[in-house]
Amino acid sequence: MRLPFLKLDLEKVASNIKTMADNATKHKLEFRPHFKTHQSLVIAQLFKEHGVTGITVSSIYMADFFSKHGWNDITVAFPAGLSNVKLYDSIAKRSKLKVLAVDKAVVKKINNAISESISMYIEIDPGYGRSGIRYDNFALIDELLTAINSSENIQFEGFYCHAGHTYKCTSKKEIVALTDPILESLGTLKTKYGGNISFGDTPSCSVRDNFDGIDQISPGNFVFYDWMQTQIGACTPEQIAVTMHCEVVAKFPERNEVLIHGGAVHFSKDFVLNKDGERVYGFVKSKMNAGSESYIKSLSQEHGLVACSQAEFSAIEIGDIIEVFPIHSCLTANLMREYVTASGKVIPQFGSGSPYQR
Amino acid sequence: MRLPFLKLDLEKVASNIKTMADNATKHKLEFRPHFKTHQSLVIAQLFKEHGVTGITVSSIYMADFFSKHGWNDITVAFPAGLSNVKLYDSIAKRSKLKVLAVDKAVVKKINNAISESISMYIEIDPGYGRSGIRYDNFALIDELLTAINSSENIQFEGFYCHAGHTYKCTSKKEIVALTDPILESLGTLKTKYGGNISFGDTPSCSVRDNFDGIDQISPGNFVFYDWMQTQIGACTPEQIAVTMHCEVVAKFPERNEVLIHGGAVHFSKDFVLNKDGERVYGFVKSKMNAGSESYIKSLSQEHGLVACSQAEFSAIEIGDIIEVFPIHSCLTANLMREYVTASGKVIPQFGSGSPYQR
Repeated sequence: MRLPFLKLDLEKVASNIKTMADNATKHKLEFRPHFKTHQSLVIAQLFKEHGVTGITVSSIYMADFFSKHGWNDITVAFPAGLSNVKLYDSIAKRSKLKVLAVDKAVVKKINNAISESISMYIEIDPGYGRSGIRYDNFALIDELLTAINSSENIQFEGFYCHAGHTYKCTSKKEIVALTDPILESLGTLKTKYGGNISFGDTPSCSVRDNFDGIDQISPGNFVFYDWMQTQIGACTPEQIAVTMHCEVVAKFPERNEVLIHGGAVHFSKDFVLNKDGERVYGFVKSKMNAGSESYIKSLSQEHGLVACSQAEFSAIEIGDIIEVFPIHSCLTANLMREYVTASGKVIPQFGSGSPYQR
Repeated sequence: MRLPFLKLDLEKVASNIKTMADNATKHKLEFRPHFKTHQSLVIAQLFKEHGVTGITVSSIYMADFFSKHGWNDITVAFPAGLSNVKLYDSIAKRSKLKVLAVDKAVVKKINNAISESISMYIEIDPGYGRSGIRYDNFALIDELLTAINSSENIQFEGFYCHAGHTYKCTSKKEIVALTDPILESLGTLKTKYGGNISFGDTPSCSVRDNFDGIDQISPGNFVFYDWMQTQIGACTPEQIAVTMHCEVVAKFPERNEVLIHGGAVHFSKDFVLNKDGERVYGFVKSKMNAGSESYIKSLSQEHGLVACSQAEFSAIEIGDIIEVFPIHSCLTANLMREYVTASGKVIPQFGSGSPYQR
């Protein structure tokens, strides 16, 4: 096996999926998992065992791919663009296609450009400040809804809301406090306008006990989790289903640091800050029973520099393969493009063939 | 053309290569460009016109690829590892293979594991603190050199030094002040031990006028440059040869922000800080003559959020394709996996087929 590689623990994946599927069932929610994290047909299949038929993806290209492989109810959780309208028609011939709307002029242009039928969610900004209409801007929501309802090729699906600012939380309590008012606002929208309410970040879906007013959840990251999610309070290290395996190529005793083959082109440059305010680009899964405090302190294109505790530095030898929790598994998986299971089987990603299956 | 795409200006690439090649000629340096930035056979070919025969790469896999495509003098600018010794032999059958040494035990193990002949540079740490032996640790250098010289399959090539801390500089003056003492130290090593002195970061090679004591340069990024290099003082925006082309999918007048399809899986999450200490993940090439102050302030997996000046916000419309300078072209190119030229031709990267050409 060429190093570095991304090891996939299929049992943990199955367990993470089951927990989230059970949670959806318990709260009578439709489970529409986000496939952007794994981008894999093999992992997609594991969701079918829990009755999942509707899915979420992050680009029209990813929708095209999964619709060609038997998935026929797909939400593209991204504001509908104008450059790919031809793809809308070809996907909609095979699959129920749902996209996000944030601009009435775009809605009309898309309606004029397509001949198949698609659905649109109005995207709601819950204070995250990335995309969507503010939940209380009823004038804009009314205009957008009018544009959708007057478009013969477009059906109104409901409201889609991603509370990405939960990623700044550091406990269940903070996540709940941040999202309680969001769920209340979404409930107001449902009462006023009807439609399905779709909500979906991994932290909220992992820790909330109450989903009143919500019809659908679409978390993605939970399938693998990662070190960032442990810091948010959304999972434990034991739930993380992917680890990077990297060769130690040098040791520097004067600074208790080891160099690994594993860089920005493998991990991505996402980081979390530790309690001392230092950047952590990956967290070492200790070889030692005592646990680890070793972490990747910097990344170049192919170099990773690991700051070690004294004890762990002594335990690591050049030539060792060390196991590292990725900070952000979505980005690491996207870079690695494939997974290696415990039995050594290689599971490819959607993009592994060529860019966007061009 | 599917969006986003990475536009390549071949004239700028040719000009950047010529400038660096002329610089090498002027200072009587061997020009061994780093191919990790472009990872492309087509771009590699442009270097041949300037007499380049020796190249530098960042992994043994990349060496394997280029050695299979006619390049037969390759430095892997990474500490030699033990997991891929079989590849050393297969590459060395086709090509002169040069790797970096930082540990005497590894040198001996590699010597015992290979049957072909390879060369080793001793890697020198010029205070960057990533890899290598400190330039003044003569005891360790002596030990390493003894290990190399007593290995029948390994030749001593010289010293390799990457001053990656020049990336923290913000002017030619700072770069020169930082690297003057490094060149002096390298000169001392050459006098004491002989061999070729290889030096190579893009900032130093772009702005220094004096290369006394150096035999070879191996910059990589200069082939494209990027926004980070403009901030370091190594290039002008006009020299940047790659720009991301991204569709504008939403506008938010209350905050002068536009949303583009172009995220962390396209740009990478590398950033620079602007004068207000805010993170800049991409800098917009203005549509306006007056220049631009618009930049990507945050990235999700596929979303890019652009903070605009008032004037530029007004000039941008939904559906526009905006052109964005990447912060770190090596990482952006690695993610995009291919380039699109002015004539619409697609130039693939080494990794485009499948991971590491598995």
